[in-house]
Amino acid sequence: MDIVAGVDIGGTKTKIGLVTRDGDCLTDTWFRTKEYPDFDDYLDKMVATIRSMVNDHPEDMNVLGIGIGAPNASSRNGTIESAANLLWKGSVPLLEKLGERLDVPMKLMNDASVAALGEKLFGNAKGMRDFIVVTLGTGFGAGIVANGQLIDGYDGFAGELGHVDMTLGDGRLTGLGVRGGLEAYVSATGLKRTILYMLSKYMDESRFRSIAFNDLHGEDITKAAEEGDPIALKAFDYTAKIFGQALANFTAFTQPEAFFLMGGLVGSGKWITEPLKKYFNDNLLDVYKGKVKLMHSGMKNKTAAICGAAALIWEDHMDLTSA
Amino acid sequence: MDIVAGVDIGGTKTKIGLVTRDGDCLTDTWFRTKEYPDFDDYLDKMVATIRSMVNDHPEDMNVLGIGIGAPNASSRNGTIESAANLLWKGSVPLLEKLGERLDVPMKLMNDASVAALGEKLFGNAKGMRDFIVVTLGTGFGAGIVANGQLIDGYDGFAGELGHVDMTLGDGRLTGLGVRGGLEAYVSATGLKRTILYMLSKYMDESRFRSIAFNDLHGEDITKAAEEGDPIALKAFDYTAKIFGQALANFTAFTQPEAFFLMGGLVGSGKWITEPLKKYFNDNLLDVYKGKVKLMHSGMKNKTAAICGAAALIWEDHMDLTSA
Repeated sequence: MDIVAGVDIGGTKTKIGLVTRDGDCLTDTWFRTKEYPDFDDYLDKMVATIRSMVNDHPEDMNVLGIGIGAPNASSRNGTIESAANLLWKGSVPLLEKLGERLDVPMKLMNDASVAALGEKLFGNAKGMRDFIVVTLGTGFGAGIVANGQLIDGYDGFAGELGHVDMTLGDGRLTGLGVRGGLEAYVSATGLKRTILYMLSKYMDESRFRSIAFNDLHGEDITKAAEEGDPIALKAFDYTAKIFGQALANFTAFTQPEAFFLMGGLVGSGKWITEPLKKYFNDNLLDVYKGKVKLMHSGMKNKTAAICGAAALIWEDHMDLTSA
Repeated sequence: MDIVAGVDIGGTKTKIGLVTRDGDCLTDTWFRTKEYPDFDDYLDKMVATIRSMVNDHPEDMNVLGIGIGAPNASSRNGTIESAANLLWKGSVPLLEKLGERLDVPMKLMNDASVAALGEKLFGNAKGMRDFIVVTLGTGFGAGIVANGQLIDGYDGFAGELGHVDMTLGDGRLTGLGVRGGLEAYVSATGLKRTILYMLSKYMDESRFRSIAFNDLHGEDITKAAEEGDPIALKAFDYTAKIFGQALANFTAFTQPEAFFLMGGLVGSGKWITEPLKKYFNDNLLDVYKGKVKLMHSGMKNKTAAICGAAALIWEDHMDLTSA
């Protein structure tokens, strides 16, 4: 059967799976990215993993290509550029080096753009012309689809919305040194920073008065909110306020029909989504009100990144068959 | 000869011209928009003006169509929606009503998007795939081209970048009530507001201490800066700082190859453009540094809006002939 290998390169794990035309991930596995500080060793491991998945599968597999999602990936150049959470420094020529090892079509793209493509081919954005996927993990990523196409920008670095300054240069620093950057507020890390900020600002009793920053986890904050912890509640409200303002701003850019929210912070459920809806609508320009949906991803959490990466290759085959 | 009529509907003037395939405006005229509070009367005047331009021209004219740029225009619906500076309220079905009067292809689009299309077909953005045109008049408009296409959004209201909040809801109000909205700072009106702000903040002597807000004109501020007026200099620097931050933010969205700056505020020349370049580069994410140009429009100021509107129709004919 025809199959595409999807690869998701993350700071911690590299996930690999075999994905069908319908977006089903038949089999998947992973290995630790940081165990391969040498990039050639890393690629050898990736290729060996894909080969053994294909060979071990009971059915005959015809691999149409390999789609890869990675942080700071340039789709134009086929490179990963100075990704903060990866060990390989500078510009890493991923596609060029992978092409020395394998002779199938290969594509590389920014992980958030890949998530948007997966949503479009296999998820809840099927048939949508204009939408934005927001991935909320350690950082804040965005994949933008407008006029039915992924927006990749002049050399493949569009959608870096976590680094948009919301404060006229008068706010928190992001990991990349952007003053007031969105991901310093709206991300798993941002929420933890906001817990500290609220502890500094208010005198409420809170379980977080006895927990150090490094021992703080997102799930604890959700649990505390469920128990009515006033600092946790204030932190979620503050996060949702900035997030809602940001999504209202983004609407003024490409006027999406929907935002799809993915990742850890969304797992906090109603504590983030309820105030988010309110702040989003409060901040939306009149001309957009009632026209922009906030939606959950239609992808399975565990394999979303793999299927999105595979969509990079499947997209071309769908174009051919529908033409 | 083949010709397209370009119409630019502004709050003060309606400009009309006949535009060739090369973007030359053979003849142009205007009338006062506000003299026609009844929309049917207005359209009759528009049609009569186009007819007489075509008939009065010495050459035989074959009108391929009519392209129209207007504030708050929805390209999808062919309507103008609640434009703040126009007399006709609610949703105005422009294309439908114009179609009752004329039987040629007609297109309507947001004025800033039209400016971007003009730049692409006839101006300095020829051959560019990703760029943004910023129009700085009374307000702040933007036309976004990505993947070689105009971004119009879910129902035609993309690019309302003047209404992006830069201040986490803690700033000036725009005319549409957006707190901290960009056009409250970066526009002809925004610059005047900043003069007052600087007069309130500093005690410097300034010619503006004896001029009321309503008597303040953009050219006076440029002149004062040339004479070294400290309040004018501070106002330009402050405007450029916010503008530079905004353009750096926009870069993170679609990663344009260039921004094209048009309109009154750009006429202030080096007082705005020199500090703008500095602040823009200071705020740009490393991955974008050195890749994004700040450029002047390649369109003639007087007829830019007319030629842009005509580009709406010419674009289709160029597609046909090159296919």
